[in-house]
Amino acid sequence: MHTPSFSPDSVKVLAFDIFGTVVDWHGSIAREVQTLYPQVDGGAFALAWRAGYKPAMQRVMSGELGWTLIDDLHRMILDSLLPQFGLAHLSEVERQHLNRVWHRLDAWPDSVAGLTRLKSKYIISTLSNGNIGLLTAMAKRAGLPWDCVLSAEVFRAYKPAPAAYMGVARVFDVPTAQVMLVAAHHDDLAGARACGLRTAYIERPLEMGAAHPKDVSPQPGNDLHAVDLNALAAQLGC
Amino acid sequence: MHTPSFSPDSVKVLAFDIFGTVVDWHGSIAREVQTLYPQVDGGAFALAWRAGYKPAMQRVMSGELGWTLIDDLHRMILDSLLPQFGLAHLSEVERQHLNRVWHRLDAWPDSVAGLTRLKSKYIISTLSNGNIGLLTAMAKRAGLPWDCVLSAEVFRAYKPAPAAYMGVARVFDVPTAQVMLVAAHHDDLAGARACGLRTAYIERPLEMGAAHPKDVSPQPGNDLHAVDLNALAAQLGC
Repeated sequence: MHTPSFSPDSVKVLAFDIFGTVVDWHGSIAREVQTLYPQVDGGAFALAWRAGYKPAMQRVMSGELGWTLIDDLHRMILDSLLPQFGLAHLSEVERQHLNRVWHRLDAWPDSVAGLTRLKSKYIISTLSNGNIGLLTAMAKRAGLPWDCVLSAEVFRAYKPAPAAYMGVARVFDVPTAQVMLVAAHHDDLAGARACGLRTAYIERPLEMGAAHPKDVSPQPGNDLHAVDLNALAAQLGC
Repeated sequence: MHTPSFSPDSVKVLAFDIFGTVVDWHGSIAREVQTLYPQVDGGAFALAWRAGYKPAMQRVMSGELGWTLIDDLHRMILDSLLPQFGLAHLSEVERQHLNRVWHRLDAWPDSVAGLTRLKSKYIISTLSNGNIGLLTAMAKRAGLPWDCVLSAEVFRAYKPAPAAYMGVARVFDVPTAQVMLVAAHHDDLAGARACGLRTAYIERPLEMGAAHPKDVSPQPGNDLHAVDLNALAAQLGC
């Protein structure tokens, strides 16, 4: 999927999607829920929680809700979900703790090594719909070596809104073609491409859990396609 | 200057002023200007450039100018300054390069070690009027190990506007008393204190150059007073 015109030296900034691309939200949440509440199907809980994510962001982007941090959207979804899983009795303290599981997501096994390699040549930044506090806590716990923590929170626009992608180029004062979005989701990559960014697709076949393998076959349009972040580093000459 | 009620464990986030507190703007600029343009007094040039900083931010905060990144304010000041130093002939490329000297400031000798110690116990973030791109480039070059790069750019308000200090507490979802501003400037610390933040004063007697030593004697109101960031780490039990 290498576009002939693409040269690794033409890119200055790598902007990373986080949930699913750098960290394993499904496995992390399933494990923690299963441990805290053994009677609950942790994998199903993780999928249900995540399924509420895009509709919740849509309510913000449509103007129905004012600007809302992902921590707060996660909490709204969680509250609506608990009764379905027999957890309506959870206290406020328990709900706050569970909601913060998104701050405690584990990195995929290749992420820290791959990012460290990529950081030697590029500015590496998050570009997540997750809020800055969430991303910072996650990075500190998982050892993700970001140069910078950028978020929808900075641009007041969730991906795939153009303002988020254009915002990265503006922050670093470079043309959009010098920014590459690294993500495991085609809609995110398409949004970036429409703004003139370069794109790298990362295969994460187990993002939704082993019971729901993802189709990770190459799709046209991306500059790079890599099995993981170490493979991306190799392709970029790091 | 230890307030009796202050406990290191009550703080979660350390927010750092950058220019003068973590990096040596005067020495870095004086050295680079002297090297590039030996006929110019580099120290005087650095002081004149910096002197234009607060008035330029004031033009933004008063509404006379729209929101402007520090990179662009630095450039406006630079352009007005060059004729006074016999450098009116500088080309656009030379001006752009010189303006980026603010991205290439050297850390004080204790900064990397002190920050690394402090990072083991606290979230460490920038809180600078410098823009995110500037702060990220500076950190990458100087090896400053930030957990997060926060800037006036995120909050659309230059310090000492309350929105900048309150913004840090909001990003990390903590009470303002769990955030400590670390700075070498009393006006910055006073602004933070007025918003309920804890404050640590760092002595940087040579911030303005050896020819203009600063009075760094303790002033009332700050929770901590330290000669440098290693001393701060020791005071905070890191």
